[in-house]
Formats: sequence, structure tokens, C-alpha cells
Amino acid sequence: MISACASAQTVDKTDMFSGAWKNDRGSHVVIKNNDGLLSGYYQTNLGEPDKSAMFPLTGFAQGDQIAFTVNFKGYGSMTSWTGQLTEDENGPYIRTLWNLTRDIADEEEPDDMWNSITAGASDFRPSGE
Amino acid sequence: MISACASAQTVDKTDMFSGAWKNDRGSHVVIKNNDGLLSGYYQTNLGEPDKSAMFPLTGFAQGDQIAFTVNFKGYGSMTSWTGQLTEDENGPYIRTLWNLTRDIADEEEPDDMWNSITAGASDFRPSGE
Amino acid sequence: MISACASAQTVDKTDMFSGAWKNDRGSHVVIKNNDGLLSGYYQTNLGEPDKSAMFPLTGFAQGDQIAFTVNFKGYGSMTSWTGQLTEDENGPYIRTLWNLTRDIADEEEPDDMWNSITAGASDFRPSGE
Amino acid sequence: MISACASAQTVDKTDMFSGAWKNDRGSHVVIKNNDGLLSGYYQTNLGEPDKSAMFPLTGFAQGDQIAFTVNFKGYGSMTSWTGQLTEDENGPYIRTLWNLTRDIADEEEPDDMWNSITAGASDFRPSGE
Repeated sequence: MISACASAQTVDKTDMFSGAWKNDRGSHVVIKNNDGLLSGYYQTNLGEPDKSAMFPLTGFAQGDQIAFTVNFKGYGSMTSWTGQLTEDENGPYIRTLWNLTRDIADEEEPDDMWNSITAGASDFRPSGE
Repeated sequence: MISACASAQTVDKTDMFSGAWKNDRGSHVVIKNNDGLLSGYYQTNLGEPDKSAMFPLTGFAQGDQIAFTVNFKGYGSMTSWTGQLTEDENGPYIRTLWNLTRDIADEEEPDDMWNSITAGASDFRPSGE
Repeated sequence: MISACASAQTVDKTDMFSGAWKNDRGSHVVIKNNDGLLSGYYQTNLGEPDKSAMFPLTGFAQGDQIAFTVNFKGYGSMTSWTGQLTEDENGPYIRTLWNLTRDIADEEEPDDMWNSITAGASDFRPSGE
Repeated sequence: MISACASAQTVDKTDMFSGAWKNDRGSHVVIKNNDGLLSGYYQTNLGEPDKSAMFPLTGFAQGDQIAFTVNFKGYGSMTSWTGQLTEDENGPYIRTLWNLTRDIADEEEPDDMWNSITAGASDFRPSGE
């Protein structure tokens, strides 16, 4: 019974990723967890002319861990988030670090590739939508 | 005509991700690029009891940019790589930064979540296989 | 007069780093800003047997930017924080990303150097002490 | 005798940081190690109008670990490198990850702070100068 409970708990946690999340900068992400393989979309609230644009998402979830990638197609950048579901006094949230790569034109790669990756941290909380 | 050529070049570059790659630590990755959505598998040469284990991969490619995620299922970790295809005097390679999240037990999260993410850099070159 | 005010404001901001700060995990840092060159000490609240231990700090501040390093001597690790002073509805805070390197024994470097660096984010707020 | 040797070896390694180093992008760094506290200067080969400019350095070294910060005064950025001295078939090198913060104007911080930090990897080898 104990192992059955442990197993059930793990399943619950994996399923907890499915749904709508919102980060501290107002971006929205909708995640669908299909047995560990993630799909969904991301709506950024930053740096975009069209804030209604939805960008596709792929990634994996396992237990309370998650890693996912978004292709900001048409805007020359891609981002990967890596992290873990945890909780604080305000409830559950996904705590991530991310790397964003922006496209460097081929002829400028020798000079500019070194600064093509931006890094940061982002927390996602259930958006209640 | 110039834009047609530029477009053709972009397509070629995207297709260049399909194939077998090897990083500087002897890990192998096989990537299949299906119109920008990546699948494939990763074989690590490090920190694993069974080096023949293959771990599934998902991600995106766009132009010469790439971001992909691997779930090291059974080993409590997941990694995302983010980067760009470029070249040096030894030929083309994928230049990436990565973040690895390792699972922290729930009861230790308040103390240990801060050190759950390892970061690094990795270059992948065609493995000629 | 405008440029004088702008200059004064820059000076104020630089001086704003001098003082006591506390991060979200309860670590304390005391910074002394001597014309842009920082000294001070760091008291961690994590992963240490002796929480009263003070570790020396060095770094630079310029305008509202800051970067500083702490040597956790005796514990085999060193951390660099990089970031910027900004503010939200709760007041000013220093928003940073950090990299921590932990010592890998020479004989294990070929296998383990890849996972020697831990990454994270940390916000420091005035500790009011 | 064994512990004496081990101690001597540690001292040697610390002293190995003093000298001139060059990274893979042609930047030069001169490090002076004064009992673990570093000083020196950095000459970048990238993104600067004046490549002869020397920027001051501060940081710490301990055993084969190193972390140092450079203030690119006048160019609105600061960088911290964190890493470890190791060696490969080409000899010793310092393997680092770095974070660079670039100044965001106060009025743009709410929108742009998220992309103020650039991340990367850099190896420094003895420059033989």
C-alpha cells in the first residue's frame, strides 16, 4: 500500500503541470502533459509587437521536474526553461532558470556569437484561468 | 532572386540538424528534424551506470538556432540545451549552454532547491556515424 | 544643472549598495562601497555547519550595476553574483544571477568537472539592520 | 610528509593563477594573486571601440578554483567569471562560466530587466607573454 500511495502521489504531481500558468512578468503558458511529453503554447507579455501571438511549446515532465522549449518563430529567438515544482506560503509554483538564444546573422557570428544567449530566472504560478 | 537564395540557405541550415552529433565529453545525440519539431535520443557518456541507455529528446530548430530537452528518466534529472549552429576552422558545430535540474526530495526542498540546477556549456560536432 | 543632478543621482545609487542586505533564503551580506570597489562579508543560512561564519567579499559597483564574489573558504566553493539594483512595489532590491563553483578533486576532474557549477537567481533586499 | 606535500601542491596551484591568460576570443587577462585576493586587468577583444583599454579586475582564488569580476566602466557592463583550473592534452586552462550584466535605463527596467544578463562559457589558457 505504501508503494501504491507513493506511486499515486508521483502521478498526481506529474499531472499538476497540465493547466494554465502565469509568470512574474505576465507571460502565460498553457501546458498539456501527455504521459510526460509536454505540448501547449506560450504567450509572452514582453518585447513583442503582438501580445496575442501564441508560440508552440514542447518538453518533458517527470515527477516534479520540468523542462520545456518555446520557438518564438518570426522573432528570431528560442527559450528553454528548466526547473522544478515546489511550493511556498502562496502555494505551488514552478521555479525555473532559462536560457534564450537570439539569432545572430552568419556574417556576424565570429564577433557576436558570444553574446547570443540571455539568462534569467522565472517563477510560474497557476493562473486560475 | 537574392531572397530566394537566402530562403534556400535557411532551409538547408534547418535540415543540417538532422543526424548524429557528439559532444566534447563523448555523449552522443541523434536528432531528427521534422519541420522544426525535433525528436531523437541522447546517450550520455557520464555519470550513468548503463552507458548504452538511450533517453528521448524533444525540442525545436529554426534557422540555425536549436533548443532541446532530454529526460534522464530513472536518474532523477532533466537537461535543456540552448544554442546555435556555427562553424570554426574544424567545421560546423552546435554551440550550447545547458541547465540540468536534479530532483530534490519534497522534504528537502526548503533547504536544497537553491542548488538543484547545474549549468554548463557543450559543443556538438557531427559524429560521422 | 540637469547634468549635475544626473551625476548626483548616479552617485546616490552607487552609495545605495553600502549597507546590509538579506536574500530570500535568509543569507546576509554586508557591503561597503569604496568608490566602486566593494568589500564586506557574507553569512550564508544554507548548507553550512556554522551559520555564524563570515566569508569575505570583493567586487565592483557602477551606477545601479553590481557584481561580487565570495570565497567560502574551508567549504570548497566560491560564488559570483551579477545583477542590478531595481525596485518593485516592496522597494529597492538587487536582482542577481549567480554561479557557484565547487571544488572537484584533481583525479575526478575528467569525469566530474562538467557538473562543478551550480546556477541560480537571488534577490537581495535591505535587511534593516 | 604526505600532508606537507599536499599543502605544497595547493600553494603551487593557487600561485598558478598569477600571470597572463588569453581566452578563445582573443581577450587578455592579467592576474595577480595576493594570498587568494586577486587584482589585475582585462583587455577585451570584442565589442569595444578601443581594444587597448584595460579594465580592472577583482576576485578570489582558492586551490584550483577562481572567481573574478571586471567592471567595463564607460561601456555600461560588468562580468563575473566562475570556474576552475584544470588541464587537457593542450595543458592547463581555466574553465569558466560567466554572467554579464548590462545597464538598463531606470525607466526601461520594468520592461527590459529580464534580458539584462548575458551568459556564456570561456576557457583561458596561459598566453605565454
